[in-house]
Amino acid sequence: MRYELFYWPSIQGRGEFVRLALEEAGAPYVDVARTKAGEKRMLALMDGDATRFPPFAPPFLKNGRQIIGQTANILLFLGARHGLAPRADAGRLWTHQLQLTLADLVAEVHDTHHPIAAGLYYEDQRPEAKHRAADFIAHRLPKFLGYFEGVLAANPRDSAHLVGGRTTYADLSLFQVVAGLEYAFPKAMKRVGRRHPHLMTLRKHVAARPRIAAYLASARRIPFNQEGIFRQYEELDR
Amino acid sequence: MRYELFYWPSIQGRGEFVRLALEEAGAPYVDVARTKAGEKRMLALMDGDATRFPPFAPPFLKNGRQIIGQTANILLFLGARHGLAPRADAGRLWTHQLQLTLADLVAEVHDTHHPIAAGLYYEDQRPEAKHRAADFIAHRLPKFLGYFEGVLAANPRDSAHLVGGRTTYADLSLFQVVAGLEYAFPKAMKRVGRRHPHLMTLRKHVAARPRIAAYLASARRIPFNQEGIFRQYEELDR
Repeated sequence: MRYELFYWPSIQGRGEFVRLALEEAGAPYVDVARTKAGEKRMLALMDGDATRFPPFAPPFLKNGRQIIGQTANILLFLGARHGLAPRADAGRLWTHQLQLTLADLVAEVHDTHHPIAAGLYYEDQRPEAKHRAADFIAHRLPKFLGYFEGVLAANPRDSAHLVGGRTTYADLSLFQVVAGLEYAFPKAMKRVGRRHPHLMTLRKHVAARPRIAAYLASARRIPFNQEGIFRQYEELDR
Repeated sequence: MRYELFYWPSIQGRGEFVRLALEEAGAPYVDVARTKAGEKRMLALMDGDATRFPPFAPPFLKNGRQIIGQTANILLFLGARHGLAPRADAGRLWTHQLQLTLADLVAEVHDTHHPIAAGLYYEDQRPEAKHRAADFIAHRLPKFLGYFEGVLAANPRDSAHLVGGRTTYADLSLFQVVAGLEYAFPKAMKRVGRRHPHLMTLRKHVAARPRIAAYLASARRIPFNQEGIFRQYEELDR
């Protein structure tokens, strides 16, 4: 049976973390909202009349009749089913903890261009975005990247992986975050990248994994763009 | 063996979601940072030299040698061990999904008073806070509360619980969020509350549970205050 992934059809956004896990797992799936009338079906499921388990927002994954929402929760589910996380309790929780910390970082990246309201245009909150992005680059970005660099450096098994010696969904997500940050803040990341060699190694290793490389080269990978979480506004970069 | 909870000693904050679960479970625990030299021990663990699994931020829970960070992750762990979530996979993930949606709401509440930078004082971002809080009250608050009201209303077992017919950690967290919103936005919540009868029932039911009632009346419950996530700034309420 094929999974059905529901996410906005024109952006990577939070759906991309799920797409990367499905691709690495070689799991058959349909990106529903990118098919004909698919977005309508997605909105109907969010309405809540069609299911007892309505998600608050995309992405969500349908596995037969089961619906699973919240990015990190979907990855918890996929990680266990497809060997993208350790089986033992402690490693499973540690992987999830890293994913949730990445989710916090992603939310902060979003708010660099939307500090006042997600429902308003960027153009309506530009001065505030400039302040928030400056603080993000000066304080939050180094704190988060330094944290993940430290986790990689401290991994006794292999500093190219966050958890043990094998690829987990947290590695895939960290790749996506680093790639997104390079798109959004090329100047800041050029400076910061140099100080985080393990992060840069992980980024390269993940991109070179055969299924991920094939995915990145395919039409299934939506390019970064100015509608997603990672946006390139030159005035927000430093 | 007693759990050790590590969280900032003077606020409810995100640690409160863990405290409520520990209290409802009747699990023995020490609130470490509220003990002598405890905060120092907390900061040392975050430094990362003392553990292979350093948390990015409090709260985190120590269970013997195991360290678990990220609020929702700690609750996933406690829920399974103490019967505060369904055992079956689907119910376990649904409960976690609701918790992660509450975590998103909590992050948005925090940003109503800190829209530009968590590291700056509220007084340094007051005009921006006013804009963000107005948008939060007009759009995000009704959307989130309407979502949880709908989940309660659609629960075929019992509309006083989010999941099935028994108390889960998601119920405890929803109680905490509603109580916090009532503290932070009394005017807005007075209006909104009327339209969400199931939320108000759940709030009362949780507060009346014997162990929770005893906890709320004890010195272990830190009162809401102006340093936490839920803060009462009159100019942000409407």
